[in-house]
Amino acid sequence: MSEKITELLEAKKIAELRALFAEMEPADIAAALEEFDDEKLPVLYRILPKDVAADVFVEMDGEEQEYLIKSFNDRELREVVNELYLDDAVDIIEEMPATVVKRILANTNAQDRKIINELLNYPKDSAGSIMTTEYVDLKSGMTVGEALERIRKTGVDKETVYTCYVTDNKRKLKGIATVKEMILSGNDAKIEDIMDTNVIFCTTTEDKEEVADKIKKYDFLALPVVDKENRLVGIVTVDDAIDVMVEEATEDIEKMAAVLPTDKSYLKTSVFSLWKARAPWQLLLMISATFTGMVLNTFEDRLTAFPVLISFIPMLMDTGGNTGSQAAVTIIRSLSLGEIEFSDILKVIWKEIRVSVLCGAMLAVACFIKIQVVDVLIMGANVNLISCAVVCVTLFVTVFCAKLVGCTLPILSDKIGLDPAVMSSPFITTIVDAISLLIYFNVASAFLGFNA
Amino acid sequence: MSEKITELLEAKKIAELRALFAEMEPADIAAALEEFDDEKLPVLYRILPKDVAADVFVEMDGEEQEYLIKSFNDRELREVVNELYLDDAVDIIEEMPATVVKRILANTNAQDRKIINELLNYPKDSAGSIMTTEYVDLKSGMTVGEALERIRKTGVDKETVYTCYVTDNKRKLKGIATVKEMILSGNDAKIEDIMDTNVIFCTTTEDKEEVADKIKKYDFLALPVVDKENRLVGIVTVDDAIDVMVEEATEDIEKMAAVLPTDKSYLKTSVFSLWKARAPWQLLLMISATFTGMVLNTFEDRLTAFPVLISFIPMLMDTGGNTGSQAAVTIIRSLSLGEIEFSDILKVIWKEIRVSVLCGAMLAVACFIKIQVVDVLIMGANVNLISCAVVCVTLFVTVFCAKLVGCTLPILSDKIGLDPAVMSSPFITTIVDAISLLIYFNVASAFLGFNA
Repeated sequence: MSEKITELLEAKKIAELRALFAEMEPADIAAALEEFDDEKLPVLYRILPKDVAADVFVEMDGEEQEYLIKSFNDRELREVVNELYLDDAVDIIEEMPATVVKRILANTNAQDRKIINELLNYPKDSAGSIMTTEYVDLKSGMTVGEALERIRKTGVDKETVYTCYVTDNKRKLKGIATVKEMILSGNDAKIEDIMDTNVIFCTTTEDKEEVADKIKKYDFLALPVVDKENRLVGIVTVDDAIDVMVEEATEDIEKMAAVLPTDKSYLKTSVFSLWKARAPWQLLLMISATFTGMVLNTFEDRLTAFPVLISFIPMLMDTGGNTGSQAAVTIIRSLSLGEIEFSDILKVIWKEIRVSVLCGAMLAVACFIKIQVVDVLIMGANVNLISCAVVCVTLFVTVFCAKLVGCTLPILSDKIGLDPAVMSSPFITTIVDAISLLIYFNVASAFLGFNA
Repeated sequence: MSEKITELLEAKKIAELRALFAEMEPADIAAALEEFDDEKLPVLYRILPKDVAADVFVEMDGEEQEYLIKSFNDRELREVVNELYLDDAVDIIEEMPATVVKRILANTNAQDRKIINELLNYPKDSAGSIMTTEYVDLKSGMTVGEALERIRKTGVDKETVYTCYVTDNKRKLKGIATVKEMILSGNDAKIEDIMDTNVIFCTTTEDKEEVADKIKKYDFLALPVVDKENRLVGIVTVDDAIDVMVEEATEDIEKMAAVLPTDKSYLKTSVFSLWKARAPWQLLLMISATFTGMVLNTFEDRLTAFPVLISFIPMLMDTGGNTGSQAAVTIIRSLSLGEIEFSDILKVIWKEIRVSVLCGAMLAVACFIKIQVVDVLIMGANVNLISCAVVCVTLFVTVFCAKLVGCTLPILSDKIGLDPAVMSSPFITTIVDAISLLIYFNVASAFLGFNA
């Protein structure tokens, strides 16, 4: 697509270029424009049809937006800002340096500026920070015809018109009326007769993740947001809820891999930011691995008497880590989807005990066969039956302990208010490593008679 | 909530119970009913107000639905089936045993049965399998007034009325017209003048993940689905797209933890199914760890001459695994969000090289300090400066290699059509374990002069 745009631009076929843009979706135009150099960006942006320019602007990345704003004159900036939904304006402002923010606010009308400043004050990750104040409000005494007339007059600036909010004189939320219900009921029906008064809502300070969960659970197109006095102050629409869900899934995945969440996409994140996101857990885990080293240290001299046991250490540690994180990650995801909670802990443990017996038995048998066939027969290693039994018994006990640690730690950390996602692979691995070595040496001492 | 329901049920206050249900959202009623024994379920279900019963039924889990269907007489079953949206009916049928499916289809009218059978034939994970056929179709010659009248007459059964689809006589998709645009334009406007003819659509065989991505990218409420001849056959609504996104995120997370995806929630999954989901990777990884064991084996006799080196093996292996999976998981998520693709591989490698130098240098310095302070000064371990240098240099090189393996493997496996998510922690760990030991022994042989 960008080749075609370059071609038309170089041939100065501006009308054709505008016609091409008019046929494209804003998200696609934004993606195409981002391929161009910063200097070409303002030129191309000015060619965009007026009615899609602001929509394209919203879809761009922060860096391109900042560059464009700097290239705008005040009139151009005002045109864009006036076209933006206020929640989008807030999202953009939050990413801009102070000087740019000042210029944006200076070119916003007084009423919008007041609302933007209010929205900027809501805590990060709260419902208030992602809501929009542009909804259609109705009064319960209206007829459907009057309501549709109100939508006709005010709807063009609203992010959604399909769910309307019925408020009283104190802006308290009385009910919701959908356009579907209005159309099905006909113009003469009263809003108070067709509105749903059992309204699910959220408060401005509620976590945005909970807001997204509600929209998902009830299949809503929008969720009303009320303040402490129960007055309607805004709505969160389903497209913003989707963005929250994707963002939260990314954060969970990053945490599970011991990476601190970053705001930007990978290619836009600086080397230094990537280092900052990864370094803390690397350091912590490296130092925790000292304990495993200490366990190994304690048994060092006895190990040198049975050197064949050393070569099974990586397999035992890895299998322990893998089986433990399998359980941990499954539980973490179930917690985050609300499928299990603390009261299920006994059910979870009982289930994992049975799974771990199955897994442990299978792995022990497979390991026995593997040692006898691969190590002894094919490679000619000197592993006697007792050593082989030591390894297989250790494997079984390790898998059992790893699954128990893996399933209980996330639930417990959720209970005490820690994010369960950090109790994942790297953390579990470090704990299970030390446990698996302790089991190994105790089993070995029982079977081979060296003192543990 | 379930206590209150039990109380009202035991006191036989049926009218009050029905009033309570009437005020609740279907999703909440379904969650409350699932707490009850199977025998109570049909009793409670029959108390539900007629207009919400089918909505509650859709929100229930497969097991409860099956139990309810078995307890229904044919008239009750027909009532529920008639109220269901056809895509929901298909979802339910897909989870039921053959005898139940037969009964459901026998109680469906001929026209719906034909559509259900068509929907059942689309491949799993295709757009066809999640679409609904109940949309509002318009003709381009209609006025807005006529269109609204058509919505009034047919809209009650449609999953969404807000986006209407304009088709010609051959059911080919000509454009889309939103109710917002209709209301804003007034009753006399012509549909052909207000419809958008640049329609984004998908085909019946397209992967449902791509469908969800389109809905997310363009902030749509619904996406039209066309067949091979470009005829409109259905739509996918945003709520179904959300379910697909959540499901796909769960699958990615499970794969990253070396667990095969399961269909049901954790507590509903049988012990045997959990074992089946976890066993294959456990076995594979256990056997791959043999290579690490073989590396260790090769150096066994020389290790016994430098026993102090053994105790650092867990730390080196763990740090290699952790840093490698940090890179891998970040890249896997970026690939799945479409932020990077194969052509970015050099950019990614160059970025990871710089990050790994930063991380490796930091870890090496931290490790040096830790060994000198904790191991030597506090614990009195016998680690001379050369051994300490061997460990720190190994750490630096291991981190470097781990990040490179971690960032390239997912991109390469994506390129050759493998799911990058399986190139995550467990797999990377196994590879990096062997690499880190090889590095360790080569560095040791260079510094300490034993033959590698």
